[in-house]
Amino acid sequence: MSETPPAPKDSLAVPRFVGMPSFMRLPVRDTAEGLDAAILGLPSDSGAPFRTGARMGPNAIRQASIMLRPFNPYRGNIDVFQALQIADIGDAPVVPGYEMETLEWLEQAVARVVEAGAVPCCLGGDHSVTLAELRAVARRHGPLALVHFDSHTDTWDTYFAEKRYSAGTPFLRAVEEGIVDPHKSIQLGMRGSLFRSGDITQSLDLGYDVVTTDAIFEMGIDAVAERIAARTAGAPVFVTFDMDFVDPSAAPAVETPEAGGPTARETLAILRQIRGLDIKGCDVVEITPTYDGPGQITSLLGATVMAELLAMIAETRQR
Amino acid sequence: MSETPPAPKDSLAVPRFVGMPSFMRLPVRDTAEGLDAAILGLPSDSGAPFRTGARMGPNAIRQASIMLRPFNPYRGNIDVFQALQIADIGDAPVVPGYEMETLEWLEQAVARVVEAGAVPCCLGGDHSVTLAELRAVARRHGPLALVHFDSHTDTWDTYFAEKRYSAGTPFLRAVEEGIVDPHKSIQLGMRGSLFRSGDITQSLDLGYDVVTTDAIFEMGIDAVAERIAARTAGAPVFVTFDMDFVDPSAAPAVETPEAGGPTARETLAILRQIRGLDIKGCDVVEITPTYDGPGQITSLLGATVMAELLAMIAETRQR
Amino acid sequence: MSETPPAPKDSLAVPRFVGMPSFMRLPVRDTAEGLDAAILGLPSDSGAPFRTGARMGPNAIRQASIMLRPFNPYRGNIDVFQALQIADIGDAPVVPGYEMETLEWLEQAVARVVEAGAVPCCLGGDHSVTLAELRAVARRHGPLALVHFDSHTDTWDTYFAEKRYSAGTPFLRAVEEGIVDPHKSIQLGMRGSLFRSGDITQSLDLGYDVVTTDAIFEMGIDAVAERIAARTAGAPVFVTFDMDFVDPSAAPAVETPEAGGPTARETLAILRQIRGLDIKGCDVVEITPTYDGPGQITSLLGATVMAELLAMIAETRQR
Amino acid sequence: MSETPPAPKDSLAVPRFVGMPSFMRLPVRDTAEGLDAAILGLPSDSGAPFRTGARMGPNAIRQASIMLRPFNPYRGNIDVFQALQIADIGDAPVVPGYEMETLEWLEQAVARVVEAGAVPCCLGGDHSVTLAELRAVARRHGPLALVHFDSHTDTWDTYFAEKRYSAGTPFLRAVEEGIVDPHKSIQLGMRGSLFRSGDITQSLDLGYDVVTTDAIFEMGIDAVAERIAARTAGAPVFVTFDMDFVDPSAAPAVETPEAGGPTARETLAILRQIRGLDIKGCDVVEITPTYDGPGQITSLLGATVMAELLAMIAETRQR
Amino acid sequence: MSETPPAPKDSLAVPRFVGMPSFMRLPVRDTAEGLDAAILGLPSDSGAPFRTGARMGPNAIRQASIMLRPFNPYRGNIDVFQALQIADIGDAPVVPGYEMETLEWLEQAVARVVEAGAVPCCLGGDHSVTLAELRAVARRHGPLALVHFDSHTDTWDTYFAEKRYSAGTPFLRAVEEGIVDPHKSIQLGMRGSLFRSGDITQSLDLGYDVVTTDAIFEMGIDAVAERIAARTAGAPVFVTFDMDFVDPSAAPAVETPEAGGPTARETLAILRQIRGLDIKGCDVVEITPTYDGPGQITSLLGATVMAELLAMIAETRQR
Amino acid sequence: MSETPPAPKDSLAVPRFVGMPSFMRLPVRDTAEGLDAAILGLPSDSGAPFRTGARMGPNAIRQASIMLRPFNPYRGNIDVFQALQIADIGDAPVVPGYEMETLEWLEQAVARVVEAGAVPCCLGGDHSVTLAELRAVARRHGPLALVHFDSHTDTWDTYFAEKRYSAGTPFLRAVEEGIVDPHKSIQLGMRGSLFRSGDITQSLDLGYDVVTTDAIFEMGIDAVAERIAARTAGAPVFVTFDMDFVDPSAAPAVETPEAGGPTARETLAILRQIRGLDIKGCDVVEITPTYDGPGQITSLLGATVMAELLAMIAETRQR
Repeated sequence: MSETPPAPKDSLAVPRFVGMPSFMRLPVRDTAEGLDAAILGLPSDSGAPFRTGARMGPNAIRQASIMLRPFNPYRGNIDVFQALQIADIGDAPVVPGYEMETLEWLEQAVARVVEAGAVPCCLGGDHSVTLAELRAVARRHGPLALVHFDSHTDTWDTYFAEKRYSAGTPFLRAVEEGIVDPHKSIQLGMRGSLFRSGDITQSLDLGYDVVTTDAIFEMGIDAVAERIAARTAGAPVFVTFDMDFVDPSAAPAVETPEAGGPTARETLAILRQIRGLDIKGCDVVEITPTYDGPGQITSLLGATVMAELLAMIAETRQR
Repeated sequence: MSETPPAPKDSLAVPRFVGMPSFMRLPVRDTAEGLDAAILGLPSDSGAPFRTGARMGPNAIRQASIMLRPFNPYRGNIDVFQALQIADIGDAPVVPGYEMETLEWLEQAVARVVEAGAVPCCLGGDHSVTLAELRAVARRHGPLALVHFDSHTDTWDTYFAEKRYSAGTPFLRAVEEGIVDPHKSIQLGMRGSLFRSGDITQSLDLGYDVVTTDAIFEMGIDAVAERIAARTAGAPVFVTFDMDFVDPSAAPAVETPEAGGPTARETLAILRQIRGLDIKGCDVVEITPTYDGPGQITSLLGATVMAELLAMIAETRQR
Repeated sequence: MSETPPAPKDSLAVPRFVGMPSFMRLPVRDTAEGLDAAILGLPSDSGAPFRTGARMGPNAIRQASIMLRPFNPYRGNIDVFQALQIADIGDAPVVPGYEMETLEWLEQAVARVVEAGAVPCCLGGDHSVTLAELRAVARRHGPLALVHFDSHTDTWDTYFAEKRYSAGTPFLRAVEEGIVDPHKSIQLGMRGSLFRSGDITQSLDLGYDVVTTDAIFEMGIDAVAERIAARTAGAPVFVTFDMDFVDPSAAPAVETPEAGGPTARETLAILRQIRGLDIKGCDVVEITPTYDGPGQITSLLGATVMAELLAMIAETRQR
Repeated sequence: MSETPPAPKDSLAVPRFVGMPSFMRLPVRDTAEGLDAAILGLPSDSGAPFRTGARMGPNAIRQASIMLRPFNPYRGNIDVFQALQIADIGDAPVVPGYEMETLEWLEQAVARVVEAGAVPCCLGGDHSVTLAELRAVARRHGPLALVHFDSHTDTWDTYFAEKRYSAGTPFLRAVEEGIVDPHKSIQLGMRGSLFRSGDITQSLDLGYDVVTTDAIFEMGIDAVAERIAARTAGAPVFVTFDMDFVDPSAAPAVETPEAGGPTARETLAILRQIRGLDIKGCDVVEITPTYDGPGQITSLLGATVMAELLAMIAETRQR
Repeated sequence: MSETPPAPKDSLAVPRFVGMPSFMRLPVRDTAEGLDAAILGLPSDSGAPFRTGARMGPNAIRQASIMLRPFNPYRGNIDVFQALQIADIGDAPVVPGYEMETLEWLEQAVARVVEAGAVPCCLGGDHSVTLAELRAVARRHGPLALVHFDSHTDTWDTYFAEKRYSAGTPFLRAVEEGIVDPHKSIQLGMRGSLFRSGDITQSLDLGYDVVTTDAIFEMGIDAVAERIAARTAGAPVFVTFDMDFVDPSAAPAVETPEAGGPTARETLAILRQIRGLDIKGCDVVEITPTYDGPGQITSLLGATVMAELLAMIAETRQR
Repeated sequence: MSETPPAPKDSLAVPRFVGMPSFMRLPVRDTAEGLDAAILGLPSDSGAPFRTGARMGPNAIRQASIMLRPFNPYRGNIDVFQALQIADIGDAPVVPGYEMETLEWLEQAVARVVEAGAVPCCLGGDHSVTLAELRAVARRHGPLALVHFDSHTDTWDTYFAEKRYSAGTPFLRAVEEGIVDPHKSIQLGMRGSLFRSGDITQSLDLGYDVVTTDAIFEMGIDAVAERIAARTAGAPVFVTFDMDFVDPSAAPAVETPEAGGPTARETLAILRQIRGLDIKGCDVVEITPTYDGPGQITSLLGATVMAELLAMIAETRQR
């Protein structure tokens, strides 16, 4: 494409608070046509078993994201928006209180991005939205290697009333549906008290690699990044980032906070160390803005995580 | 019954902040057996079309209610808890994100109260929970006269994805199901902008009497109370109180706040003026605690409204 | 124009929290071409002498405005967006910390709206932005009749360091510049303690009519509305609404709150009673979002005030 | 005294946020020598039976008070600080957690003000601090006529562990000690639920006149002001203002909020209508700042109430 | 005991927000009879020298604790509630504003737990409540080995008005009373500015071992855990955890926050590494909920600390 | 000097919340005459390009600082207020909305401190205030060695409307004006996304040494402290501390938060390790209090940083 790529507004020329906030002040588009990657909000919390309000997540992340700047010094000062055609295409529609219909609608919206040839970069929403994304992405790219940051495995079988679809079940469902290849996948950050003694083993039994928070600190960040790369090598990758991976001091506004996680610096260090993933889709989920303080630090960190994922995609594309 | 009725803890003897907060510090019971009225939480927000979080409403109301005292000077210094056997029986279970199943579970829980011979006094929850209550109560008492405080009529036909069950539709559904007699019913407090030009007429067409916020102030409080009594005379009554009836300055923590409502004093004056209703069930709904400030004024006002409803029931019983 | 007018998204079809919030979910346009009225943010707080942060005001008002619906029952159920071509054209650029340059930039942005033939409907910003608006509007329409809701007269001569341009001086400057005709203008809502004994008389001496908060309640709402209409009859009108007109209980998030004002209901009753103004421009100013509680009641009321102003314009146009 | 009286800093010359906040930006003095009235903080919450934190009240009121200006237009544009020599003399020391010792220390601090010939104008603190004030003031001026704004009578006999000194008992103790003459005294604003059926009659039995919130609105503001003046005529007066007199929408940050009170405008109208009291001491109590929202409306209203009391004193002196 | 032990509600069957929150959703009992350990709230803040409000601490911790699950993977996936009979027995009564009487009442309540043969696991309350606990526990078990996490030593002699009982003095009093054996005891986490140059040496002089925050990081977590075990070996142990041990970023809602402490992860790592203590009593104190943000991270961390202490007790019992 | 030096109030004798808060409860003076160091507030936010409100910073820091105690155990238990004559001299006046005039007024106020022979220890304000300080200090001491903690370099050339003076430009201006010697200066903590690829190199090109956040952790704290000492050896030093150096979890209330910074403990460890600087001026800037939560952790950390800077000055003086 010969024309100038879509770029964020220049925050040295026009103050960041001027204008309606799209993600990183990117241009707003109706569709993903012609894009390499598309920011898409998935504003559903119908899958949330405890705190709710993640429906307000996408716009809260956008609002915080206007503080971010386009160049990423952690990957060779890459100009992400020169490397990739990215725009913010708004939100998928949802049916609040109707989890099954919501999952269908979300899947359709993500599918349209995938069909347009763009990488869906989604802003949640509770973690059940990831199942919709995985379905849409896997339909085109085949079984995916999941890189899953979270303090919980989300591989329970059912929740209340034996319901099989909620924020606590997507990564069992995804294995059952054959859209995630657990033997190529890795879950990182698990910690805290458990429902049953088998909360971790249920993931291992499915074939996932699991790296607890304690293990992350025992291995060290470099080893963690290498393990992710090795585990997913050669496969199409989907990265899902549940904000409760991070300690509640840096991410208080999540659905099920779990005390004792990595700091924001440690979290970003891991992400910035990861190299070579062939990302076909990604998301940042579980931000519930009404639980944030006035400093909105959860949304800012969530926006920063998404910006790192975009840089990861850009770097891989450039090579 | 010869034994001492269940009574709130004496807040002159044990400070209010001592102990786990039940509604007005009433005894906690497992069932409604032997009670005249039962406080029951309906912690669902699966019907909420905009702001969510009413699942946290029942406990927020309980927490604020410990500031209330047992005697009500507005009805002859009635000692409500001497006149009525009341206890807090906890919450009904729900299925978050599954509105249809939730309505069923809620109806069953309310039905158990009704079958025990007690008046269900419910703490919402979004306004769709009232449909579950109406079904349970009408099954025993027949079509009900609805006294409905709200800034919206909640008589739309469908919401997103043509869904017929949400916080915006219960009072059309109730007429369709024959569990509310609209010709004995009255809706009070409607105001603000409308979706369609027929938002009010759709209620009038169904047979409801509608008194807008403006009309309340034109008529005066005495006339309003009389109109409610006259409209419902002789019928079994259900009173539902959506907190957005009140102005957002006094009730900021609601799902769909509507600027320009009555103050707390004006609201309580209406309730305290109402006489002679044969209440078979009642609720206070739509409180979303994360939208309250640290003073928790919405929850305190909601608790006060429920205390007035209990006094209304007690006074009628005494006569 | 034969095509369908721009209309808010249907909130019965797509939930209000889906998509990036423009004012009342109106379409976003780059310019005011072809519009009857344009929503324009003026995100400056360089004129604020006390609390600051009104630069975040326009987007906070937009975010709250998604709760509003298109039909206005207070003026014959007028469908505002059928009567008028309205869109949200974003924000004017500003130079934070440079009041003089900011006023110039704001004036240019408003002038472009006026030149396109549209009524500028502005979201502040501190009250100094109104001077920029008055200049742009008066350049085309001549000296304006000002209808000014506020708890302060804002007719001081200078502030700190003898500066002549700030949120406390615009309505003296406007008289000096000949862009407001004080003898056709009216200031309403003044109350509270004064800097000097002449704070009110300085406005009267300039020729303004002044109606204090006390006087509003002595006269009654109907008389107030009539006095506004009579005062401005035949002249091009500019309506400016400083949110501190309202009591801090209903509008806590303002720059200089003044205890003892009208409630939200009383405020809206006045606005809804006003008839026949020939509005050439209007604004809602002084909202400082970080001082709002989580319920965002100041922004919601500000959005409602702007919606009433749009209805006023629509009604006059229709006749 | 021939020298210039102490005056607030000019907020048109130096912005209000510049400098450490004393009450209304008045000069800070070590003692009350040479003053007509002295602002004195009484930062104790050891008497608080429910919400606590009033120890932070005096500085919160000071911080909000910097928004006030020196002239009071409600009493002939009186320049309060020309009429009276007033300064802020800081806070009395307290012994947190030791109510009895605290009352002694507070009484000594107030006594020093009284002995210097100044009127103590105190910022609470919970309502038990008023007993200390009454003792100090009555020692010099004899039994006092109490003008008591509150939603509760605070005339209970004992609280937890049969303790006789708390925020719920001062006005029974004061009658017992002979420092308040109940037959010259009046309590205004009582409302809400009661501990016992005799909560109001216990005050009447003591000899107090009691005007409930309902009665205030039945009588009208003029009649209320006249009743206060008539009741206290000829006696030395002490005015105590418990912020929970006001509705929680306008005063959320109080120890025991009571839904259904007057608005801020109605409250100030009563105060501004009162004439001719011979005030020997006064206070504003029960503000608990951590329960206020970011707009700090409770503290601002409390500061405004104190400013009205100062104007009342100034007006009486001038005559 | 052959019957099923009391167990938390299953949060996979009934959502966590359903029902009134007891600690970890444990059954509520009236007494400690038949229990191995009892959760008991000590809602007093009469000893707080600075920020107050810890009276609301126990219920805030309970509310956050419903996010915890029963299995603890850090001690061999122990099912704490299978290993131990635990219930929540509510709160001890207090006399707000009367520190001495409060300490007596608290001691009696704790003594009843000890006499029933259960380990008191207390939720504070300011740190002076620990003196009451130590007295009750030592009466049965003899002088205790104190394991004290805190940023302050709390071994000052007197506070305001020479008062000997406050949150700043319990661990000098405990040595004087012979209920703590300082030579078996250890204080960990001290840091920050000091009142006098001898703030640390006053503890060393008493015989305590003191490990500052800096020393913790120099030694490493394993060495710290070993030092605690070695110091207390063979003695009955009392563990007291003042939440200001943790950095304010992870625990903002404390009485006297001290910048520069361990993160939540580092804190939990120490606790999870401790082995073999013979715990006779423990507490988590100094949480002041009104200073927490909406995410309630201090209360969640406090609840997690108590859950770790329960697991410590369970593990020791199992062996 | 034979007289007793000014000292903070004893917080063991008079509770911290008693009295109006000066910095660390130091005496308040009108001028810096006779002082070694003077606390001076610079309450301006006219240079803030994004979040505003730093005008409220100085008093917020003072309010939090009352939690600090006079002895500093990290530099040999030095009694800072015995070693140095320090007082709080209030705030410099500013002209809100007029950056150029504000810089002049600030410079004059700082110059008066310098001329009195005292070290100005300033509380910001946005980062543009540092330019005013550097001018005043360099006028007496010559080109300064800058020790600059920040996540941004603040060496851009111009901002909006080509303005050369804002919070983003002071350290390019200072080099241009010859008041900072970049070859003796060091910038620490840079991280996060960049406006241009040259954001870091622009500082290096000017001659500054730059240590990014990543580099700090690679080098280790000891090496960082040594590098600072070596870089500035022999030169008069100015230390400026932008609170966004710290991670937003520990400092949410800043103008432009940058996720991924050091914790509070790591930050203080660096400061406490620095030895031997010849400090001629210092500041803590960019705190915007309305973005803090109720725990006020940003202000507390800011106050602690300033206390460490005072101890640094005291230690150097003592030698």
